[in-house]
Order: sequence, then structure tokens, then C-alpha cells
Amino acid sequence: MKNTVRKNLKHLHYPKALKLNRKPIQNQIPGKITYVGEETTEDTIINVISYNEEEVIYHTNCSIEKVLHLVTHETKLKHWINFIGVHDVEKLSKLGSLLNIHPLVLEDIANTKQRPKLDEFDDYVFFALKMIFHSESGLLIKNHLGIVFNQTYIISFQQSQDTIFNSIRDRIQKKVGRIRMRSTDYLFYALVDAVVDNYYNVTETIEDKTENLEDRILIDANNASTSEIQLLKREILSIRKSVFPAKELIRKLQISKHVLYDNSTKAYIADLYDHILQVTENVDIYREIVWGLMDMYMSSLSNKMNQVMKVLTIMSSIFIPLTFIAGVYGMNFEYMPELGYKNAYFIILGIMFIMVLALIYYFRQKKWF
Amino acid sequence: MKNTVRKNLKHLHYPKALKLNRKPIQNQIPGKITYVGEETTEDTIINVISYNEEEVIYHTNCSIEKVLHLVTHETKLKHWINFIGVHDVEKLSKLGSLLNIHPLVLEDIANTKQRPKLDEFDDYVFFALKMIFHSESGLLIKNHLGIVFNQTYIISFQQSQDTIFNSIRDRIQKKVGRIRMRSTDYLFYALVDAVVDNYYNVTETIEDKTENLEDRILIDANNASTSEIQLLKREILSIRKSVFPAKELIRKLQISKHVLYDNSTKAYIADLYDHILQVTENVDIYREIVWGLMDMYMSSLSNKMNQVMKVLTIMSSIFIPLTFIAGVYGMNFEYMPELGYKNAYFIILGIMFIMVLALIYYFRQKKWF
Amino acid sequence: MKNTVRKNLKHLHYPKALKLNRKPIQNQIPGKITYVGEETTEDTIINVISYNEEEVIYHTNCSIEKVLHLVTHETKLKHWINFIGVHDVEKLSKLGSLLNIHPLVLEDIANTKQRPKLDEFDDYVFFALKMIFHSESGLLIKNHLGIVFNQTYIISFQQSQDTIFNSIRDRIQKKVGRIRMRSTDYLFYALVDAVVDNYYNVTETIEDKTENLEDRILIDANNASTSEIQLLKREILSIRKSVFPAKELIRKLQISKHVLYDNSTKAYIADLYDHILQVTENVDIYREIVWGLMDMYMSSLSNKMNQVMKVLTIMSSIFIPLTFIAGVYGMNFEYMPELGYKNAYFIILGIMFIMVLALIYYFRQKKWF
Amino acid sequence: MKNTVRKNLKHLHYPKALKLNRKPIQNQIPGKITYVGEETTEDTIINVISYNEEEVIYHTNCSIEKVLHLVTHETKLKHWINFIGVHDVEKLSKLGSLLNIHPLVLEDIANTKQRPKLDEFDDYVFFALKMIFHSESGLLIKNHLGIVFNQTYIISFQQSQDTIFNSIRDRIQKKVGRIRMRSTDYLFYALVDAVVDNYYNVTETIEDKTENLEDRILIDANNASTSEIQLLKREILSIRKSVFPAKELIRKLQISKHVLYDNSTKAYIADLYDHILQVTENVDIYREIVWGLMDMYMSSLSNKMNQVMKVLTIMSSIFIPLTFIAGVYGMNFEYMPELGYKNAYFIILGIMFIMVLALIYYFRQKKWF
Amino acid sequence: MKNTVRKNLKHLHYPKALKLNRKPIQNQIPGKITYVGEETTEDTIINVISYNEEEVIYHTNCSIEKVLHLVTHETKLKHWINFIGVHDVEKLSKLGSLLNIHPLVLEDIANTKQRPKLDEFDDYVFFALKMIFHSESGLLIKNHLGIVFNQTYIISFQQSQDTIFNSIRDRIQKKVGRIRMRSTDYLFYALVDAVVDNYYNVTETIEDKTENLEDRILIDANNASTSEIQLLKREILSIRKSVFPAKELIRKLQISKHVLYDNSTKAYIADLYDHILQVTENVDIYREIVWGLMDMYMSSLSNKMNQVMKVLTIMSSIFIPLTFIAGVYGMNFEYMPELGYKNAYFIILGIMFIMVLALIYYFRQKKWF
Repeated sequence: MKNTVRKNLKHLHYPKALKLNRKPIQNQIPGKITYVGEETTEDTIINVISYNEEEVIYHTNCSIEKVLHLVTHETKLKHWINFIGVHDVEKLSKLGSLLNIHPLVLEDIANTKQRPKLDEFDDYVFFALKMIFHSESGLLIKNHLGIVFNQTYIISFQQSQDTIFNSIRDRIQKKVGRIRMRSTDYLFYALVDAVVDNYYNVTETIEDKTENLEDRILIDANNASTSEIQLLKREILSIRKSVFPAKELIRKLQISKHVLYDNSTKAYIADLYDHILQVTENVDIYREIVWGLMDMYMSSLSNKMNQVMKVLTIMSSIFIPLTFIAGVYGMNFEYMPELGYKNAYFIILGIMFIMVLALIYYFRQKKWF
Repeated sequence: MKNTVRKNLKHLHYPKALKLNRKPIQNQIPGKITYVGEETTEDTIINVISYNEEEVIYHTNCSIEKVLHLVTHETKLKHWINFIGVHDVEKLSKLGSLLNIHPLVLEDIANTKQRPKLDEFDDYVFFALKMIFHSESGLLIKNHLGIVFNQTYIISFQQSQDTIFNSIRDRIQKKVGRIRMRSTDYLFYALVDAVVDNYYNVTETIEDKTENLEDRILIDANNASTSEIQLLKREILSIRKSVFPAKELIRKLQISKHVLYDNSTKAYIADLYDHILQVTENVDIYREIVWGLMDMYMSSLSNKMNQVMKVLTIMSSIFIPLTFIAGVYGMNFEYMPELGYKNAYFIILGIMFIMVLALIYYFRQKKWF
Repeated sequence: MKNTVRKNLKHLHYPKALKLNRKPIQNQIPGKITYVGEETTEDTIINVISYNEEEVIYHTNCSIEKVLHLVTHETKLKHWINFIGVHDVEKLSKLGSLLNIHPLVLEDIANTKQRPKLDEFDDYVFFALKMIFHSESGLLIKNHLGIVFNQTYIISFQQSQDTIFNSIRDRIQKKVGRIRMRSTDYLFYALVDAVVDNYYNVTETIEDKTENLEDRILIDANNASTSEIQLLKREILSIRKSVFPAKELIRKLQISKHVLYDNSTKAYIADLYDHILQVTENVDIYREIVWGLMDMYMSSLSNKMNQVMKVLTIMSSIFIPLTFIAGVYGMNFEYMPELGYKNAYFIILGIMFIMVLALIYYFRQKKWF
Repeated sequence: MKNTVRKNLKHLHYPKALKLNRKPIQNQIPGKITYVGEETTEDTIINVISYNEEEVIYHTNCSIEKVLHLVTHETKLKHWINFIGVHDVEKLSKLGSLLNIHPLVLEDIANTKQRPKLDEFDDYVFFALKMIFHSESGLLIKNHLGIVFNQTYIISFQQSQDTIFNSIRDRIQKKVGRIRMRSTDYLFYALVDAVVDNYYNVTETIEDKTENLEDRILIDANNASTSEIQLLKREILSIRKSVFPAKELIRKLQISKHVLYDNSTKAYIADLYDHILQVTENVDIYREIVWGLMDMYMSSLSNKMNQVMKVLTIMSSIFIPLTFIAGVYGMNFEYMPELGYKNAYFIILGIMFIMVLALIYYFRQKKWF
Repeated sequence: MKNTVRKNLKHLHYPKALKLNRKPIQNQIPGKITYVGEETTEDTIINVISYNEEEVIYHTNCSIEKVLHLVTHETKLKHWINFIGVHDVEKLSKLGSLLNIHPLVLEDIANTKQRPKLDEFDDYVFFALKMIFHSESGLLIKNHLGIVFNQTYIISFQQSQDTIFNSIRDRIQKKVGRIRMRSTDYLFYALVDAVVDNYYNVTETIEDKTENLEDRILIDANNASTSEIQLLKREILSIRKSVFPAKELIRKLQISKHVLYDNSTKAYIADLYDHILQVTENVDIYREIVWGLMDMYMSSLSNKMNQVMKVLTIMSSIFIPLTFIAGVYGMNFEYMPELGYKNAYFIILGIMFIMVLALIYYFRQKKWF
């Protein structure tokens, strides 16, 4: 049994996404850009997709200078700058200062523990939210995403390489949908929409995990340890923590009058709000269901205990009286008349057999087996 | 016991209505109309009931062109267009584009996982809600319903053939009530009213299921497995998810100033709001009751365990001391004076008998049986 | 034990007042007056008390025509019309149409499942609420009450004969208090006040039931079955369902500017709001207490189980080792030196006695008895 | 055990302060002043403290006429009239009518079950709240307090003699603080402040009771019966019921523009609001803690049960196999070769001893003792 | 076992920070400055850091007169006055009256049980909040902090010497960041920010404690006693009590138009609000997790009980029937034919062995071991 517990305890060393507040910016000079998050040794990569209705040009692994050149000179194109690896604070601040992005915004980009946030400046908009997904081994992973955009460019600052935006890259290349025809705010909407759509996958995985856990609890409460329930609770709380603020912010986006949002995009943002509303409702439904699992587990345990006790009671109730009778005739009194009767032994065996039958009948009546 | 669990597990493979978010529109180009829902091979059917105060004309299985002709030329009549089977995306978009319905509305119609929604456009109103009912085998079924109406026509986009609107079809034919005399907004009200009235049936079924489960838990906690409670919880959460947004929307309907709603219809919408309010209150009451069932189940289990333990304790407490006494006189010591006494055997039997009586009296005092 | 359960199950076939939504107006033409409620064969009776400061005249069992005559001709008097038995839909619609009461109001009067409601029309006010009381056998009963009043008359539509208004009838006859001197709005206030005052009785009965149940759970958890707790929960939920909307409506009454409410009556309505606020607070307090009873019941059960287990453990722990010792000296080995010693038997008996004392001392130390 | 329960049940016959709604004003003519509360035979006493900056005059046991004289003629002094014993309805209405106090106010003063209330009339202010304290025997007592004041006098209507205001009487006599220098609104503030300050004592007693109960539950769950937890819950609910409305009213006081409140007093009322806010927060914290005690009690019980079961299992597991072995060699088969070996008896005893050691080692490994 | 409990009970004598309301200002004259808090014998120390862009001057252990001199004459410098030890009421009131600080503010500074508070006067701002940290022995400690500032000085009134502000002192000395360049409102922001940043540490400690407790509960429910869960609950409630009002106040700060806040500082206060929002979210997540620990503990206990019961049942079920068989052949009947057969003894032993195997197979099937 101990082994099972230990095995489960490995789960309990929660995946990092569930660590709520490891090392936030503490005792730090406000406005100083510091990377907050897991240490990583990967290189920071900047890819740019420059596009307009006619053409798409890919620039992989650009330098800061290249990006600046694109943004300031190639104004007929819109540029989607993929900044992958926000841990390189130096590059980040260099790009930020060249493009006149406020230091507090850069601080929020580098802080991967930052909660979702919307800041509308006069000439650009900053939106921070979380990309959430389950890794192949089933761990919940939260990647910080910061989006900054104005008329000519949109920068997506990411913690690491993603797969969520692949379909958007595809749509740009194949000129499917409206992205190529519309201005950057539509691409901004498309990015946020991709992130929110992915939340559906997360709630589906939660649904699967919950049903799987329910099944195992019902068949054998021991295999489904409480630590799994606790872990699932944490996952849901962690998802809520990212999704609920995002809902508020998309609501704000919907009613914002900022000049960067085109009116035709507004209908799509309303739709987006509808999606995230549905996500939050689903999260809350699973919240209720998972919170109920512990009760289910307890009653499953009690049920098993009942089974165990019944076996004990039946065995004891049948054999203890019989043993007593055998004990009586094992007594060494000199004068015990029954002992001398020829068939006394068989009569006693018969009586014992009848007693067994009677007790079995009694327990059957009680539906104990 | 395992068989019982497995049998119950079948229930746990939740009916599809309880699947909260299977395959929603993911990584999809916004505004592209895609069917989201269970696969079906049924044909899409369009039936039209054209009516005014004087006459009713039925057009079954119309083509799109026929519908367009009716709507644009037969303007003396009002047309209720029953579009059954929203999985035929082609027909849907064709009808939509001919009648100038916004692509996002068509997307919401084809997405059977769409939450309830009210969109008031300048010249038409779109209302999406859920028809909820229990199938004959007791499964909860949710059918998506989208209603679009303007002065001349009302289209009800349905996932599949319904029975809920039969009484309305009847009323139109027999000219009972006000539908034939009033404009389309009254028919719109009548359709929504029929859907909401049907919610009462759903809560009644929930009431029946709950009482049945309660009874079975009290008589024998084993038969009423926890999975049934869990399933009932899910049903209620699923109903809430559809009914509560609908309440909000009907409230919005009630205070809306849209030109399509006649003032005389407003009183009926207020009444409708009253009905859905009562439904939501009932759902919440059953929520509390069903949430309490698990406690009831646990205490029922504990009660049974108490019964089992009492039997064990009574049997053990009576026979273990007796067996000990028998054991004493079964010892083979050479000098045990009692063994030689003539009536010792019967005296010991008598003492045992008195002990049994004393213990029975003791347990009676404790009200153990 | 089974008998106890069955007996309790009778309670579980909830009294009709707890049936939340049996047969509401379904698939019905809106505005058509239909009786919704328990079937009854009693006759509908209309009694009128006509009064002013100088005189009181009683008209029992009036016809509709008589009522109309009184209301239209005897305008120096105010008329309190007691319409007992709303199941007679025909009489109801006749009276309604003659007095120009809106069909939707009449529908709400005939629907005894209607939730509390306040509708202020230009020339009359409609107020629907519930008279709640416990029958002599302790069942919760909810009677629907609809009040319609203007300057000259006040009609109280009741489901059946009441006792709640007797004190008001008395006050009118004996000219105690202000009713005779004031206009109909004061009588309206007095009627609602009588209904609300009666809610106190209901919460008192709930208080008594709760204390009684608590006592029985503590003395013997078996007698107080879980079904009684469940029933009490339902009663409280059912009361809440009627009282909370009533609170909202009285609040609305208090801030209403309708011409029918005299300013001097306003102070009394404020008082009334205070009363119903206190009722709702009490209901919520009992809600919390009754919801806690199941925990109390569970811990009472666990406590009893502990008692049972202790008896078993003490009996087993004392006698099983002794039986073992007896068994040892019952072995038939040829060479067992102790068997031959003269006092061995008594020494063994002594050792056994000391063991018993030691174990009793041990269990005493553990405070097991 | 039964005795313990019965002893606890005495607690369960809740002290009167916890009776939520015994005999409120039912079926009573509104505006008629009726005493609602416990019966008492004490005399009603009126004491007056007349004071200004220069002098303090005490009038004990005044007649109504004396009070009227003071209030109307001695206008250079401010008068604090202590009306002790609101059960004397006659005196109350006499004083009320002479001072022009509204009958509904007098009704609220005489109703000791009245919830906290603030009524601002043109020329006087009425404030009703509860003095809460624990009696020496630990019972929660709630005394109704009604305060009426204008520029010249302040009347405190009390249910019985208090000790809470003694410090204020002291301050007036010794001219400590601002009361003598300021107008009546400051004394009004001082009285309410004394009542609210006393709420701190009440929450402290609750804190002590809770900690005491926690300790006892942990040491021996049997002594801390569930009825004590239930009683503590009721106390907290009862305190909440008085304190939360008072908070609302003091908030109202703070933002009121009534002419009787001096601006300089406003800062003190803000402070008062801060105090009552802290009280309500503390009450809610204890609410959470006490609600958690039942869980603690249950787990404490389970823990004890585990202890009991372990003793049983260890005793049984050790001695039942041994008894079996002894039984085997007690069989009377004619041919049992071991029986004849010389040292067989001691070898068997040795084997038994080793088995005991092995089992003890096994249970030690499991950390069962 | 008792020892473990007693050891845990030491924890239960809650650290003083968890005492919610020990001795607040009771029966006290309002506006009179009284120290409320733990008794201390430390001296009150006043340190001043005078700084501007060019220079920093340290004055340690200043007299009140020195402070006054600095504040009134050295106006080219900004002064951060560290008043350590608010229990010296005399010094406090002297400083307060010389600097014209309102008596109610001084009262709030001296009351270490005061809840967080923001008071904006015409010429200075008062902000009270709690420094929360865990002592080295793991106890939660809450220190009261009052900040008063205007254009020239900022006074931080502290309960005792802190370490939280050290980094700020460092930044001033080394001229890192903006403090030296900006006016006092920025230092004010920096102080509050340091306090709020430290809340992260507190929630991290809570996170560590929770995980540690979870681990111990899973491995061995006995070691992790319920009192630790209860204590953790109290810590979280205590933290909430300080952090949630602080959140409200920082929100107020953010939208305040007071002249003392520079516009450039506003962005930083918005950031601060973001931080405290994250803290409150984390506190609430741990609230949910810790509240769930008791369930986890209970199920862990039940699981262990199941283990114990299985051992008992297996041992009893195997040996009780065997003992019965042995007993049968220990009977002394004269005619028991089996006894005479040569190999009867070994056949019986064989049968017993087969029975043991069968039972072991049966329990294996049930997965009991």
C-alpha cells in the first residue's frame, strides 16, 4: 500500500503550472524588467511574417535591427512578429525601447506569473493572457502570452514555441479567411480567439480525466487515490485563475472605444466573449463535479468496508457458536450422559449443520450475500 | 457486487446531452458555417405553414427557392418556416444568404453546442435556446433551436423533428387562441413559451427521479449507487446551463424596445419571464436536494454498517465467554475437583444459560435489537 | 428496522405543498383561465362584508349579480368580497369580466402554483401570495391567495376557507383598530399583514420540529431517520420559495407611487416589510441549522458505532487470550509437566483472573468504559 | 453515556436569547403597543441624568410628570432619561404620547424581538439595537434597546438594568471626555459606541468557547458532544442576526444628513462604523471555524474508532491462530505421532512464541502501535 | 497517542496574530490615544532618513524636537521618519500634536488591532495596513503599520523593527530606482509596494505548509493531526482579514484625485493593485485547498480503517473455521469412528490446509491483499 501512496505522491509534487506564486517580482525596483519564471537555456528567436493582400514574406530568426527596419520601412505590409523566449530580458528591453513600449508593459511581458491584463495606450494596445494546454504526459502547462499591436505590426511575446497559432500561420499562407484582407486588429482577434478556442481542449481533457477518475473510484476506490482528486481540484482552480480574468478583459475589449479596433471586428469580439463565457461555465460545472468526487470516494470506501465487515460477521456468526458446542463436548466432566449415547456424535453434527443452514437463511434474508 | 457496479457504469457513460463541450468550433475560421453536433444521416426538411386570419396553407418539404418565393411574394400571409436538420450546412447558408441573415447568426444556428443567445438586428431578431426533454429511456436530450423572425416570416431552425410545437401547429390549424390574428412576434412568443413550458416537464422528471432515488437509498443503500446520484447532479447542472442564460435573455426581451415586438405581446413576455423564473427556482431547489442525497446515502450506509456490527458484537459477546468456560473444563489437569462432581456438568450448563440471558438483557437495554 | 424505514417512507411521499411543480399550465393557450391545483369538490362560495364607519352588513353566499350590484350601487360602503374556491373557473371569469379584471390576472388567480406577484393596473392592484400553515397532523399546507382591490372593493380569492383572516373579520365587526375608518388600501394592508404574521407561526413550527429532531438524534440516532431531515429541508425550501418573492414584492409596494395607496398607509407597509424581513432571516437561520442536522446525525451514528465496537473489542480482548490458555492445557501431549502439579489448575485460574484485571485496568485507562 | 447526553440536552433547551421568534406580535392591531418578550415582575424605573458643562443633576425613580417637567422647563440642561423595563406598556405609551413619539415607534420599543432599526423623524431620531452579552453561567443574553433623542433629551428604553452604560455615567459625572461639552447627538453616539464595543466582548467569549471546545474534541471527542457545537452555531447565528442589521444602520447614520447630527460627531460615527465592521468580520471568521468543528469532531471519532479496531485486530490476530494450534493438539485422534514425542509440548510452545513475535513485528512495521 | 495530541495542542494555543480581537479599545473615551496590542518593554526609536537627489543624511534615535526641526527647516530635503514602537503613547501624541495629526488618526496608529484604513485629509494622507510574515519558527506574525505623509515628510509608524523596508533603505542609499528623484508620494508607493510584495512570501509559506501537510496526511494520517489543518485554516482566515480590506483601499488609492498623488505615480499604483489582486486570488485558492484537506484526512483515515479491518477479517475467516474443526475432533464422545482411522489425523490436517488455500484464493480474488 505504501508504494501506491508514494507513487501518487509523485503527482503531488505539483507540475509547475500549479505552483501559484513561485518567486514573483519581490523587493524589486518597479519598472525594472526581470524575467520571472522557470529557468530555460533555449535561445530567444524572433520570426516575422510580413503580409498584405498580395504577398506573404517570412523572416526567420531576425535580429532586433531587422525587425525595426521592417516595421519602420515596409509599411505597406503588416508584420506579425513572433518573439519566442521572453527570458532574454536584454533583447526584450532593446526591442521595447526601440518601439517605444512602456517599461511597465515590458515588465509584465517578462513576468510569466503575471495575471491576464489589458492596457490600452494611445498608439498601441497590450494584452496579456495565458496559453493553457495539457502536455502529452497529462500535465497542465500554462504559457504566458503578451500581445502588443498597432496599425503596422503585432508582436506576440511567447514563453516558448507554440502549436496553437499554427492554424493561423496556415490561414495567412493559404489566404484562407479574412486575415490577409483586414488590418492588424483582426489578426489580434484571431490570435486571442485561437488561445480561447484552445481552452475548450483543456476543459475536454478535464472532462476526460474526471470521468476516468469516477470510473476507477466506482470499480475500486483504492486505485483512485485522493491525491488525484486533489490534483484535479488544483488544475481546475489554476485554470479558473487564468480564464476568469481573461473573460473580464474580453468584456472590456468588447465595449472599448479604442481607435485601433475596427467596427467590423467588434462583431467577432462579441463572438469571442460568447466563447469564453461558455468556457468559464464549463470550468464551473467541472468544479462542482470534481468537488463532489471526494464524497463519492468516501462512500465507495464505506461500501467496501461494509463488504469486509459482512464477510467477517458471517464467518464469525456461523463458526463461533459451532466452536462453542464442540467445546462443550470437549469438557472432561466425569458425568456427561450424552457422551455415552451411540449416535450422539452424529446427532450433534446434524444439529450443527442445521444451525449453519439457519444462519445462512438469516443472512440471505438480510440480503448480506 | 462487481456486476452491480459495472451495470451502473453504463449510466456513467453519460448521454451525449451531458457532454459539456465535445468538439466545439476549434481552430476554425470565424464566420465559416460549420455543423457542430452529433453526426446524423437524416435528410434536412423544410416545412412551411403560411397563415393569416382567413386561411392556412401547408407546404411540406419545400425547396429553398419555394421558400424564397413564398416569403417575397405571398406577403399577405405570415410564414412559419420549419427548417429541420441544421446539419445540412449547404442548404442553411443558401437560405441564409438569400434572406440576408448574418453569417455569424448562421454559424450559431449550425453550432448545436451554442449557448442561448439573443441578437436583435435592425430588420430581424435571432433567438437561440435549447429544447430539453427526457427520452423514453430516461436520458436527458437537449436540442438546439434557433429562431429568426421579421414581419413576414419566422424560421425555426431545429436539430431534429420535435413534438413540442405540435400544440401550436394545432392551434394555428383550428384557429384557437390569438396566433392567426396577431403578427409574427406573437408566434415567436408562442414558440418560446412552448419551449419554456416544456422545461416544467423536465423538472418534473427530475423530481420523480429524485424521489425514486431517495426511496431506494432508504430501503437499501446498495441498489442506489452513487453513480446515479452523480448522474442526476450532472443532469441538473446541464439543465441549469441552458435555462439560466435563457432567463437572462427573456428578461432582455421583456425590456427591449425593438420595433418588431408589439406592445400587446409585451404582457405575454412578462408572463413568460414569470414562468422561466419559476423553472429556475425549481431547478435550484432540486439542486439543493440532490446535493444532499450523497449525505443521505452515506448515513444510510453507516446505518447498515451499524446493523452488521451489532450482529457481530452480539454473537461474539455471547459465545466467546461461553467457549472460554467450555475450554476451562476441557483442560487436562490431573487435579480439577469440579470434574468429579456428579451434577457439575449440568450446573455449568445452567451457568452458561444464565450468562446468555444476562447478555441478552444487557443488549436489550442498549436497544441493540 | 425495515418497518421503521417504511413508516418513514410514508413521510417521504411528500405532502402536496412540497410538490414543486405538479401540472402547471402546459401547452395551454395563454390568457385562457384554467384551474391548476388539487382537485376539489367543494362549492365556490362568495361572502361579502360591506362596511363603513357607521355600519357593517354581511352578505353570505352571494351570487355574482349580487356582488356586482353591491359594488356598483352601494358606493358609500366599502366591500370586502371573499371568493372562496378558485377552482370554479366559470364563476371566476364571469366575475372577472364584469369587473374588468385582465384575463392574465384571472389566469394567475386560478393557477394555485403561481408564484407571488404584484401587478399594479391603472385602476386596481393585484397581489398574489401564499397562505402557509401546518395542518394539525403537521403537514405543511400552502394556499394560494389573490387580492384585487380598488377604491370601493377588495376581493380576496382563496383556494379554500381560511382561519387566518378571522381576527380581521372580528376587528371589522367590533370596530377595533382603524379598518372601518380607513379606505380599502388599509384593509388590503391588514390582509397581507395577517398572512405575513402567520409566517411567524410557520417558522415557529419549524423551530419546534427542528429541536424535537435534534433531541431525538442525540438520544437515539436510529429513531430520527434521515428521511425526516430530508423532509424538513424540503419544507424550508418550500417556505423560502414563497416567502422570498413576497419580500421583494412588499419592498416594491413600499416604494410604489400608485394612487391607491394612501400616504398614511405607507408607514404600515414599511412596518410590514420589517416583519417579512425578520421572517426571511429566521427561515435562513433554520436553513443553516437543519442543513447541519445531517452532520449531527452522522456523528451520532459514528458515536454509537464506537460504543458497539468497544463492547466487541473489550469482550474479545479479554476472552480470546483466556480461551487460548485453556486451549493450551487442553492439548493431549503425553509429556506436559504442569498437568501433574496439584495446584496447577488453581494457579492457572488465578493467572487468568489477574489477566482479566489487567485488561480491565488497561481499558479503564483508555476511558473505554 | 446516556447521562452525558441528557446533561447536554439541557443545553439544547436553548436559552431564550436563541429562541428566534417566540410569540411576536401576531394577529394584533397594528400600532397598538404590546409588550413582546419574557414575562417579568420587576418594576419599571425612570432615572434622569440632567447635565451641561457646568453641572450634573441626578433624578432617580422619576414619575412621568417629573420627566415632562424636566424636558420642557429645564432647557439649559440636556437630559438623559433611562427608561428601564419596557414591559410597562402603560407608562411607555403615556410618556410616548406626552413627548409626541409616533405609536409605531413605541410599538417597536415594546417589542423586544424587534430587529435593529433606524427611523429619522423631522424632530427626533429613533434607533433600536441589541445589547448582547454572556451571563455569568455562559448563556447568551440579548437585551432590546431603543434610543430616542432630540436637541434637549435622549431617552434610552431598556429591557432591564444594564452595566454597559456605567462607564458613560462615570464619564458624565467626572466630566471626562467630551459628553458634557457636546450636544445630545454626542451622547447618542457614546451610547451606541458602548453597545458596539461590548460586541467585542461577545466575540471574545465565542473565541474562548470555540478554543475550549476544540481542545476537548482533540483530547476526547466524547466529552465535547455535538450538541455543544450545535449550540455554538446557534449563538453565532443569533449574534449575526443582531449585528449585521446594526452595521447597515450605522452605515446609514454615517451618510445621513439629518439636522440632529453635528458635523463634528460625524468623524466619530465613521469610527463607530469601522468598529462594527471589525465585529462583523470577526463573527464571520468564527462562523467558518465553528462550522468546521463538526468535521474535526467526526475525524476525532474516526481516529478513536481506528484505535479501538487496532486493539481488536491485534488481539484477535495474535491469539486466534494460537488457539487453533492448541485446538489441533487437543484433538482425540488415536494416531497423532507428535503427541508422543518427549519435547513436543515445549517445541509447540516455542513455535507459538515465535509466531507472537512475528505478528508483533508485523504490526510494528505497520505502525499500528 | 495522547502525547501527540498534547504536542499538537501547543499549536492550538494560537499564536497571537491569530487572536482575532484581544482587548480592543473598550469602554474608552473616543479620541483618547491608547496602545492596544501585546505588551512590550522595548524603547521607542525614531530614525530619520533625509534625502533628495543630491544627498542622503541619516539621523538615528532622534528626539521629537529634532524631528520637528528637520521637518520645518530642512525643506529642501524629503524626510522619511521611522517611528518604531507605537506603544509609547506619550511620544506618539506629542509628535502627533506638533505635526497637527488628527487625534483619531493617532488612536488608529496606537491600536495595533485596527483594520486597514485610508484617510485622506486636506494636507496629509493616512494609510494603515498590516505587515504579515512568518517567524522563523513558522508562526504567523502581523505587525501594524501606519503611514502618514505630506509633501515634505513621510512617517512610518511601526509596531516593531522590520526587515521588509531594508531594500528600500538600500535603494535610497545607493540611489537605485526613482525614489531619490521623485517626491514623497513615490516613497509612499514604494513602502506599500514592499508590504504587498511581502504578502507573496506569506502565501508561498502557506503553499509550502499545505503541500507538506498533504504529503503527511497521505503517508500517515495520524501524524498530520486535525489541529494542524484547523490552524492552517485560521492562518488563511487571518491573512484574508488583512489583505482583503487592503485591496479595497489600494483600489480607492488608484481612483483618488487627492493632490498629493502625482500623476506619474498613478501607473505604479495601478501596478500595485494588480499585485494585491493576485495575492487575494492566491489566498482564496489556498482557502479552497485547505478547506478540502479535512475531507482528504477523513478518507485517509477510512482507508487505514479498511486496511485494519481486512487484516482482522482475513485472520478471523481463516482460523475460526479451522479452530471449529479442531474442536469437533476434540469432543469426547465415546463413539466417533473417525478417531480410530490410522491416517484420519493427517487427512484432517490436509483438509485444513486446502481450506486455507481456498480462503486465500478467495481473498486474492477480492483484491484484499
